[in-house]
Formats: sequence, C-alpha cells, structure tokens
Amino acid sequence: MYRVAIWGFGAMGSGIARNILSKYELQLVGVHDVRTEYIGKDVGNLLGLEKTGVKVYDNPIEMIKKTNPDLVVIATNSFISVVKDQIISILKENINVITIAEEMAHPFYTNFEAANEINNIAIRHNVSVLGTGINPGFVLDTLIIALTGACLNVKKIKAARINDLSPFGPTVMETQGVGTTPEEFEEGLKNGKIVGHIGFEQSIHMIAEALGWKIDNIEQVREPIISKALRETKYVKVQPGNVAGCRHIARAYSNGELVIELEHPQQVLPEIENVQTGDYINIEGNPNISMSIKPEIPGGKGTIAIATNMIPLVVEADPGLLTMADLPVPRSLIGEIY
Amino acid sequence: MYRVAIWGFGAMGSGIARNILSKYELQLVGVHDVRTEYIGKDVGNLLGLEKTGVKVYDNPIEMIKKTNPDLVVIATNSFISVVKDQIISILKENINVITIAEEMAHPFYTNFEAANEINNIAIRHNVSVLGTGINPGFVLDTLIIALTGACLNVKKIKAARINDLSPFGPTVMETQGVGTTPEEFEEGLKNGKIVGHIGFEQSIHMIAEALGWKIDNIEQVREPIISKALRETKYVKVQPGNVAGCRHIARAYSNGELVIELEHPQQVLPEIENVQTGDYINIEGNPNISMSIKPEIPGGKGTIAIATNMIPLVVEADPGLLTMADLPVPRSLIGEIY
Repeated sequence: MYRVAIWGFGAMGSGIARNILSKYELQLVGVHDVRTEYIGKDVGNLLGLEKTGVKVYDNPIEMIKKTNPDLVVIATNSFISVVKDQIISILKENINVITIAEEMAHPFYTNFEAANEINNIAIRHNVSVLGTGINPGFVLDTLIIALTGACLNVKKIKAARINDLSPFGPTVMETQGVGTTPEEFEEGLKNGKIVGHIGFEQSIHMIAEALGWKIDNIEQVREPIISKALRETKYVKVQPGNVAGCRHIARAYSNGELVIELEHPQQVLPEIENVQTGDYINIEGNPNISMSIKPEIPGGKGTIAIATNMIPLVVEADPGLLTMADLPVPRSLIGEIY
Repeated sequence: MYRVAIWGFGAMGSGIARNILSKYELQLVGVHDVRTEYIGKDVGNLLGLEKTGVKVYDNPIEMIKKTNPDLVVIATNSFISVVKDQIISILKENINVITIAEEMAHPFYTNFEAANEINNIAIRHNVSVLGTGINPGFVLDTLIIALTGACLNVKKIKAARINDLSPFGPTVMETQGVGTTPEEFEEGLKNGKIVGHIGFEQSIHMIAEALGWKIDNIEQVREPIISKALRETKYVKVQPGNVAGCRHIARAYSNGELVIELEHPQQVLPEIENVQTGDYINIEGNPNISMSIKPEIPGGKGTIAIATNMIPLVVEADPGLLTMADLPVPRSLIGEIY
C-alpha cells in the first residue's frame, strides 16, 4: 500500500482523491486545501461518499507530519512560479511528489533554474518528482515518443488534440476566450487573460530530448475559433460570429525546418459545426505512422487517471526530477469499478 | 556510444544491423551467423553498403571476446527452447541481451522455469535481458497498457492487428497456411505446421500483470481466411476458395468473464477484398478509449526499429529479465535518414 496525500482539493485534486480511494494499492491519508470551510472535514463526506477517517488539513507540513505519506500529489496551479515552493517544501520532508502543473511536465528548458534546483533537492533527499497529466504528459508527448519507437527514422511530427470544452466552468471559458467577440479575443491575448493551452513548449522539449533533436525556436499562434452558429452550454453562450474557443498551434524548428507541429483547438460544442473531436498523431518517417483516438481522451478524467496511476512508479523510481519519458508507461491500477 | 553485436543475420538480424549502422549513438562491432558463406565477410558489403570493418564470426563467444559489445541482439528464432541457451551464453559474459524471440516478450507464465533461470543469471552477472518486437512487444501489449494509464478503471480490452503478409517469403506463407486448401489448413493446424501468430499468451500476461488482473485461462482460435478472389504475390498464389491467411484470436478470461480479446488476422493482399489493414485498440472502461493506426505499423520495420531503439534503455536498465512494461517507452534514435 502506498500512502498518498493531496495538496489542493479543486476539480482535479478532489477527482484524484476519489480515484485514490477506489484503488487497492493506494491509501489516501490526508488532503490540504486553503478553503477554510473544508478544514477538519472528512474527505469522504466532502466527496459525497462514506466517511473515510481522512481529513482536510490547513497546513501541508502538519498534514505530512501527522500522516506520513509516501507521496504528495500537488494539484494547485499550472505554473512553476506558484508550485515550485510547494514542491520543495514536500521534498525537504523526504516525500515524493507528483504535480499536474503543466509547466512541470518538462521544465528543463523553459524554467531551467527552477528545474535544476528541484532536481538537486530531490536527489539530496532521495525522492522523485514528476509533472504529468493528459496533456502535457501523455497525448502530445509520451504517446508520440512511444510511436516513434517503431520507426527506423523520423523526419517530422504533426499532431492535434481536438477537444470539447463544454463540461468546463467559467475559469476555462475565460482563459480560452469562449464567448468573447473577435475584438475582445484579440484584447484578451494582448493582456494575457486568454492563454490557450499551457504545455506546448514542455511537450515539444520532451519529444525533442527523447529523439535527440535540437530545437532552435518555437513559434506559437493563438487564433479565435469563430462560431457560425449559436453555441450554448451551462456556463457560456456563444453568438454566431463570436468566439467558440482558441485554436492554439505550436511549431518547432530545427535548422530552419519545421520538425514538430502541435495543434490544440479547444472549443465548446464542436459537434454543432461537425468538428469530430479526437487525438491525432502523424509521424513522417520510415515507416509513416498515422494514429487517431476518437473521441479524444477526455482531459479531466485523463489527468486524474494518469496522476493516480503514476504514483507507484514515482515512489519506486530513482531520485530526481523526472519526466514521463523517463518512466515506464502508466497503467490503470486495479480497484473498485465505479 | 553503445557497442552492439548481432546473433543471427536473417531478414531481421540484417535489418537491425543496417539500422544500427545508421545510428549516431550505436556502433556495430560484430555479427554471428551460422551460414558458412558469410563467415569472415564484411557486414557492410553483405548489406550492399560501404565496407565497415565489421565482420561475421562463426562463433558467438569468440565474437564477444574480440569485439567487447555492451549488448548482443539475438535474432535467431521465436522459441525459448532455442534461444534460452544462446541468451545464457551471452549473459555469462556479462553482456546485455535484446532478443526478438516472441516467447521472450513475457515468459514468466508460459515458460516459468526458463524465465526464472535467465532472470537469476542476468542479475548475478549485473546485466539485463529484454524480449521485444512490434508484436509481441508493442502494438498488442505496451501500447494497450499505456492507453489504460489514461483510464480511471478498465473492464475489458479488445484489440486487433489486421496486417498484410504480402511482402513475406515462403516460411511465413507456410506457418500461416497461405495458399492451402481449407482441408490442408485443418491438417496443418493439427500437425503443427500452421501456427498463426506467436506471442498472444505473452501479450496477454504482460497486460494482465501490468493491470493486476488474474487470468484463469486463455483460449486460442485459428481460422482460415478463405479468399473469394484470386490473390497472387511473388511467393504464393491463392485460388478463390482457398486460404489467404490465418485469423488467429486469443481470449483471456478472469473469473469466467472475457477480459482481453486479441485478434490478429494475417493474410496476403487484404485490399483485394476491401479489408483495411490497421492496428485497433478498444478499451472498455472509464473513459472508453478507441484507438486506430491505419495502415498498421509494418511488422518487419517495426520489429527492427524497436529492437534497435531499446538498446540504450536496456544497457542502462537495472539488471534482470525485463519486459517492455518495465522500461521507458522506445524512442527513435537519431541517425542518418535513409
């Protein structure tokens, strides 16, 4: 049994808690969250399940000292600037970390100093750290790398993750610009409120490092997906002519040649305009490989699953800051089926 | 640079030799083959390339002593009964092994005693052994396992590899019964000359072990694929009404329930009857995942690629008898593109 605690009880953190509770080889021992109304409450009750005896702590270090986890899952934020100190505080207690912070999926190029510091501390404390999730972490990096393994050589990679944002709430609608006018979308890109996908640089560097490719520059484009029809979800209403989502594209060049192109158009209700969602990977090489997963692996469930399923592999791994390319592939842990 | 020698210079062994020669971080140092006409010849010349200075040896241990490889790729045979002594002779020289023998992909259940002996010797000599290839080794096991990693839970797995045998020669035609009459096909199954796919049990045990599933029994069916039309390749002619290939299906049960079904219909010229070749994986769980690769990853190139691309990972791995589920995913090594 691996003892696991969770830092952050939002949509992802609570989903990971629920998933851990279902797994035979994992034991949830504690949760930390900043929301005072949760503190001291039973995690099972908060999840609408039976009482578990596992409670929510207001201080992560106190939680660790009282519950002795083997690993803490950090599900608080996308950015290293926020999660770095959280990660380090756990490592210093000699405890392994998995985080779903997108920037941690492969931070060695994008955040070299922080990555180096985290790696050194992890090694000194003989524990390991992994940044993972469905994307970055799996669809547009690990899965691509795995498929190149069946190639004698690879010239170029083109992949797309075409998904449906309809289940997501107001925060995601805002960061993707859903429901804005084209002018508001442009403005949102400029003032940084509309960000598109976080993780393209990390995925590209993970692929390039695995393949031994030197990337000279990465160019990113964020375009509005203009809706021709009315699209309406529980959280947003998109008028015809307004923005249904953000088509975010990243292109990586090596010696002036486009070698990796990743596309991630994220929108609400794509089926209204007959857009088929899916994960698509095309490898140009010998042989060419053309893979599709239809519909796409859902983002929320996929991230919860991978963060949970990697726990035993991270606890058993050699120490240091790891990526998904350093570890065996995730596998669904056995548990109650719900 | 990893120094690599090859045992067996048939279609696969010579393909791996050619691929190794193209890779910057691999150095081919020797080849062993039993064919006396090759002995002492330059491997580059035998491959129709420039002279390499690498020669063919008639004795594998002499080759090892003279060339000091880090790893030997064994590409001689599908069966453990044949490759076991070959593998052990290499391990005893403290040298790592990759073999494409299908039965070595996951031998812990199907050949427990041999697997145990090989594992113990590998550990004692501080080296590692991996059985791999496109299938078993990748499409119907590693890739399935990886996709389950994005699932909260998995109930059932169904996968198919629908491929084209047209490029293959007389041996493959015979073991798959291509060109036989339906009566000859039945007879061939009975006398063991027609075997279908080798590796289903290994793939199933690899998946089940990764997922923590207990398999009670595996049932295998081999059916003739009767051609409606004339199908003719360089090596075989299939009359209408005769056998174009073997549809081999394996079903694994746990507590009386079908949990894994793998299908591998292998035939010549499937397009004549509008059969679309491809690799298909369907996971029934939460979420369901439906993946397809069209056309299928070609078997010969795929096996050559994976056996080559795993070399650095096997040399760097912890000692013992490993499977693809124990190691990071393969990745295409950088080299000359040809």
